[in-house]
Amino acid sequence: MERLKRTIDAIPTPDRDRMALAQRRLDNLTKPLGSLGRLEELAAQLVGITGQDSPSLKRKVIITMAGDHGVVEDGVSAYPKEVTPQMVYNFLRGGAGVNVLARQAGARVIVVDMGVAADLKTADHVSADGMTGFRNCKVAPGTRNFTKGPAMTRDEAVLSIVRGIEVVESEHARGLDIIGTGDMGIGNTTPSAAVLSILTGIDPETIAGRGTGVDDKGLARKVAAIRKGIEVNRPDRADALDVLAKVGGFEIGGICGVMLGAAARRVPVLVDGFISCAGAFLAVALAPRVKHFLIASHCSAEKGHGLCLEHLGLQPLLDLGLRLGEGTGAALAMHLVEAAVRILTGMATFEAAGVAKKL
Amino acid sequence: MERLKRTIDAIPTPDRDRMALAQRRLDNLTKPLGSLGRLEELAAQLVGITGQDSPSLKRKVIITMAGDHGVVEDGVSAYPKEVTPQMVYNFLRGGAGVNVLARQAGARVIVVDMGVAADLKTADHVSADGMTGFRNCKVAPGTRNFTKGPAMTRDEAVLSIVRGIEVVESEHARGLDIIGTGDMGIGNTTPSAAVLSILTGIDPETIAGRGTGVDDKGLARKVAAIRKGIEVNRPDRADALDVLAKVGGFEIGGICGVMLGAAARRVPVLVDGFISCAGAFLAVALAPRVKHFLIASHCSAEKGHGLCLEHLGLQPLLDLGLRLGEGTGAALAMHLVEAAVRILTGMATFEAAGVAKKL
Repeated sequence: MERLKRTIDAIPTPDRDRMALAQRRLDNLTKPLGSLGRLEELAAQLVGITGQDSPSLKRKVIITMAGDHGVVEDGVSAYPKEVTPQMVYNFLRGGAGVNVLARQAGARVIVVDMGVAADLKTADHVSADGMTGFRNCKVAPGTRNFTKGPAMTRDEAVLSIVRGIEVVESEHARGLDIIGTGDMGIGNTTPSAAVLSILTGIDPETIAGRGTGVDDKGLARKVAAIRKGIEVNRPDRADALDVLAKVGGFEIGGICGVMLGAAARRVPVLVDGFISCAGAFLAVALAPRVKHFLIASHCSAEKGHGLCLEHLGLQPLLDLGLRLGEGTGAALAMHLVEAAVRILTGMATFEAAGVAKKL
Repeated sequence: MERLKRTIDAIPTPDRDRMALAQRRLDNLTKPLGSLGRLEELAAQLVGITGQDSPSLKRKVIITMAGDHGVVEDGVSAYPKEVTPQMVYNFLRGGAGVNVLARQAGARVIVVDMGVAADLKTADHVSADGMTGFRNCKVAPGTRNFTKGPAMTRDEAVLSIVRGIEVVESEHARGLDIIGTGDMGIGNTTPSAAVLSILTGIDPETIAGRGTGVDDKGLARKVAAIRKGIEVNRPDRADALDVLAKVGGFEIGGICGVMLGAAARRVPVLVDGFISCAGAFLAVALAPRVKHFLIASHCSAEKGHGLCLEHLGLQPLLDLGLRLGEGTGAALAMHLVEAAVRILTGMATFEAAGVAKKL
């Protein structure tokens, strides 16, 4: 708890003076005022986050947090829960979607066992090329079924967040300029929808989507499970730790921790999809200042995602109908963040290029 | 005219058999069915365009076509027309937005003088690193003011398209896997809006936007100029060459030619912004089969762009409020096209990864 509090207290405000300077530079580049739209906003935001006039984004990390969920026994997912550990191995072999897109982005992928319900046959390691790593941060082997009681204890909720902070700190020690969050956990759109429903005050039916592809009956079971979880546990929406403990998941807590830890070190965070959005809501509830350090990578195809991002006040960069999670959206959007910084630092000014200004 | 006809006749249909195979491969990759949304559609489209199971996208080109417009004398732009040649020099020195984003994409930038109203002090050349080049394809030093008569002759219209085809052919000889279109021409949102208004049948007021940033009065002059151009010239909307000649521009014709030439050689084309969209409408009007070879890179902030793309049946990949042109949106979107192909060719299948399939 002390660790969490210290991290929250360490989160700075963005560097507004430097942002104003960056905006002035952007306005003098050889292009009509504001004509690079979101890229210009992003460039200024990056300067505000990092406190650097020319932010470097060389050392990129996707942190993919894995966990299992007791509520899958209620038939809320289209896939068996064995897929969670199977996909962890797939990540470590480099065969998953996030690996492909992270390779393209030049980002390393750190897979974190936050609470997989299986004994993973691998120890903490980094691959020879440094581009894939594994960390065992298991809080417990899966959450409990929240339709029957809290998913985890309050202590476990805090621990999951602190473990996320610790992952950022050790990655920071290796060199870290930008983070993308990611998740893997069969069933995890259900706790995410529960968390988002509570924190936004929007009905579960409006928020819960088909996840990996449940049919109408599966979707009905999912909404019913969320309603029951809220009814049975009565989470206090003013207390983010209570919400996480009662209806959340270990990887959701871990993602929340990653965001807090990153903000405390002035590292920008690309928020992946629906599960990461739940982590972001928890992080912002715990520390409102964290919001400025977050960049919404995309709006997924998952039903309530766009609405929740709007609620959070984040505008997604991409809208490509993705719904894979893992950090795929974050990896894909890293290119746009880099583009923004390249524009800021690589374009000629009107004066230097001898180009006439507006009439 | 013979050259144009030959190119149009050479445009193939997409390879539907190979697309079906690609879809089968996508469905067997370790991800929920369809969960990579637009990336999966793009991957299949790329296979259909190229006729290759694993399309290579290594050799990328942004073709930035420049031209001037007689209608600027009616006060339709926020910038003086001297900026067109000034920006050409900026491109050749690598200082413009498109240079920065093309460098990031690993694409070379070929700047083409289609009709700049100045004697450019440079000859055809390619830079030492091969990443920037210039071609003189000048049809005439700027179009005539279309509020007083046709912008160009029908022969000039055909010539501008043929020159675009020739640029693709010479770039293809150097090695070419994907093209992004681009434009530079003070005033060119006005002829583009005129072309789009005629070909979509939508009122100029709904289509014309602020371009590089005209104020309300400038916008009113712009709409009035378009109305007058249509009234004075009575272009035949069933005859794309007539539309291009009467209210178009040399770079718009050139872009249309690039699209036709690329399709004839099974090369995918990323359509940049509003001006490129006008080129795309002309190309599709001349050769409907060209549409399958086009990928809309983004929806710009220019007023009628989204509506026109919808009319054309193209769904943009990005929507970032860009309105710079030059090929910036196309350069930015190349990353997504590459991502799509990497997903197709780089991910593990369920079987290879030992991951369980859907319940």
